[in-house]
Amino acid sequence: METIDAYQAVTFDHNTDEIVLLDQTLLPNETRFLRLREPEAVWEAIRVLRVRGAPAIGIAAAYGFLLAAIGKQSLPPDEFRRDLSAAKTYLASARPTAVNLFWALDRMEKRLNATAGQTNADAVAALRAEADAIRDEDIAMCQAIGDNGLTLLAPGMGLLTHCNAGQLAASRYGTALAPISRGQEQGYNFRVFADETRPLLQGARLTAFELHAAGVDVTLICDNMAATVMGNGWINAVLVGCDRVAANGDAANKIGTRGVAILAKHYGIPFYVLGPTSTIDMATATGQDIVIEERPPAEITTLWYEKPMAPAGVRAYNPAFDVTDNALITAIVTEKGIARPPYDESLAKLFT
Amino acid sequence: METIDAYQAVTFDHNTDEIVLLDQTLLPNETRFLRLREPEAVWEAIRVLRVRGAPAIGIAAAYGFLLAAIGKQSLPPDEFRRDLSAAKTYLASARPTAVNLFWALDRMEKRLNATAGQTNADAVAALRAEADAIRDEDIAMCQAIGDNGLTLLAPGMGLLTHCNAGQLAASRYGTALAPISRGQEQGYNFRVFADETRPLLQGARLTAFELHAAGVDVTLICDNMAATVMGNGWINAVLVGCDRVAANGDAANKIGTRGVAILAKHYGIPFYVLGPTSTIDMATATGQDIVIEERPPAEITTLWYEKPMAPAGVRAYNPAFDVTDNALITAIVTEKGIARPPYDESLAKLFT
Repeated sequence: METIDAYQAVTFDHNTDEIVLLDQTLLPNETRFLRLREPEAVWEAIRVLRVRGAPAIGIAAAYGFLLAAIGKQSLPPDEFRRDLSAAKTYLASARPTAVNLFWALDRMEKRLNATAGQTNADAVAALRAEADAIRDEDIAMCQAIGDNGLTLLAPGMGLLTHCNAGQLAASRYGTALAPISRGQEQGYNFRVFADETRPLLQGARLTAFELHAAGVDVTLICDNMAATVMGNGWINAVLVGCDRVAANGDAANKIGTRGVAILAKHYGIPFYVLGPTSTIDMATATGQDIVIEERPPAEITTLWYEKPMAPAGVRAYNPAFDVTDNALITAIVTEKGIARPPYDESLAKLFT
Repeated sequence: METIDAYQAVTFDHNTDEIVLLDQTLLPNETRFLRLREPEAVWEAIRVLRVRGAPAIGIAAAYGFLLAAIGKQSLPPDEFRRDLSAAKTYLASARPTAVNLFWALDRMEKRLNATAGQTNADAVAALRAEADAIRDEDIAMCQAIGDNGLTLLAPGMGLLTHCNAGQLAASRYGTALAPISRGQEQGYNFRVFADETRPLLQGARLTAFELHAAGVDVTLICDNMAATVMGNGWINAVLVGCDRVAANGDAANKIGTRGVAILAKHYGIPFYVLGPTSTIDMATATGQDIVIEERPPAEITTLWYEKPMAPAGVRAYNPAFDVTDNALITAIVTEKGIARPPYDESLAKLFT
């Protein structure tokens, strides 16, 4: 796995106190690592998708909160803690749909509150340990998701995936792609089809990039070819990630996921949603309660923000996510186990 | 309709004996008309999709055959007719899936054969009249398709379309978009959603272009957003064109059509296939007998053949068409009437 490990989405350099972040908007043409020192740069990186994927966003936000603490360490204790409260609100505003962002920041704040009465330096040390723990736990979590997912698959299977929920979206292994990475280590020889995932082409730029680098047999297709490869009998299972799962199993993920789920049902192909339990939001009753982020039409009409793909003045609708109805989901795979319908029961059990 | 009429896909200048062809690969950024004098240029234009859409390809091929006849007019009669037979085979090889191409060339050859014993000049005059007739009949046909399709729709409806089967794909009105054009003339105020249609983006570049120019309320979406707009309740009917319809109603059309049909069925939305009876191939029993053209992977991996969208060396699968199962099609709308299931009976009736 050395080749992929060269492309870790987000790490922290404790010698220089900088976040080292692979700018994924430049992939696959350029692999540029950014070194971030300010929370504002972290906010921007999350906002414009230099870092994306629920786990990686959580890790970046945790380290962003650490950067804020380091920057404010010399302030009077009251001001230090008040400013960090504001920094949390600020970082949380970068992407409204990413529950993992809020989860990581809540955890950092809790750790900060546990240091009440201690020095700022002690608080920073605690936050440093907490952010590292979030990252380390993510690695272990992705490995567990991969191993759980692998029990649903058999060697030689054809798999379809949408968007990117691989190592580039997390720490190591990723979520939806974790079974593929773990299977690859064990000689499963999957044949993977990657939807390119318009408008931002995460499937072409990221999934094809990381699977190809890992030596996986991967074939890129346009989103609208999924029905054809399914109809050809080439797909035995669909693996997708999730940005937020409601208590009833409805799953928000990258736009296009719902369409793939409907096609999979039509062709009788199992449809698996994979993610850490931190993306399961038991406070959200159903998918109808999930607010869908709408992004700029230019992402559709002007590819790569350079050449117009549509006539000037034409309206475009650009929802960044969709919600897949729980009835379309065969199983939800987490680090704590596999949930199956009815999800209101099985998901609740994961938290007991 | 003056604005759109400025953008006719293919016409013939009888003063200069040139095909005047709008180069659709340059839309929407540039509206450049090519003047073609040689069959080779017509073959190339069909091959690389400078002209596309079943009816427009048929018209271009007919005029391409006329150009061949004009160029060989001074040859001895035997050689003239032998070379035109070769020219027919040559032009037919430009796109293997387009039955309209063969239909138009067969018709030109038949007219040529009817002039046996006459001078080359008389033969050319006959072919000139025949090519014009193919174009004029296409205009009348598209109008009839539009009027028949309009009987299935009501004012204010939300409509989804895939690829481009509009005026740019035909002479006037188009096929799948003909009811929209005819409705627009009568104040129907449709709200149209156009799939961008990867990889070549005919929906973004052509459909959005021509509907916007005609003043239609059109919104561009990525192909993978169709499930969302359907789920939002915004779509009352889907209108698509067809490249070839088998005797049992299975319909070959631009890649992605089948996926839209499956989504429409899931949401209980009528799915209409519109096209001239010349695209119905009663000699083809089912969709399984239709050979699907596979096109270069670079259309997916390198957008507009300029900037790489995927890492070097990654495999891509690029079928240009798919076949929609007749069970997913609510009705097939032609210039001769509307066929409904069972199609083996209703399509045969159109030809009696």
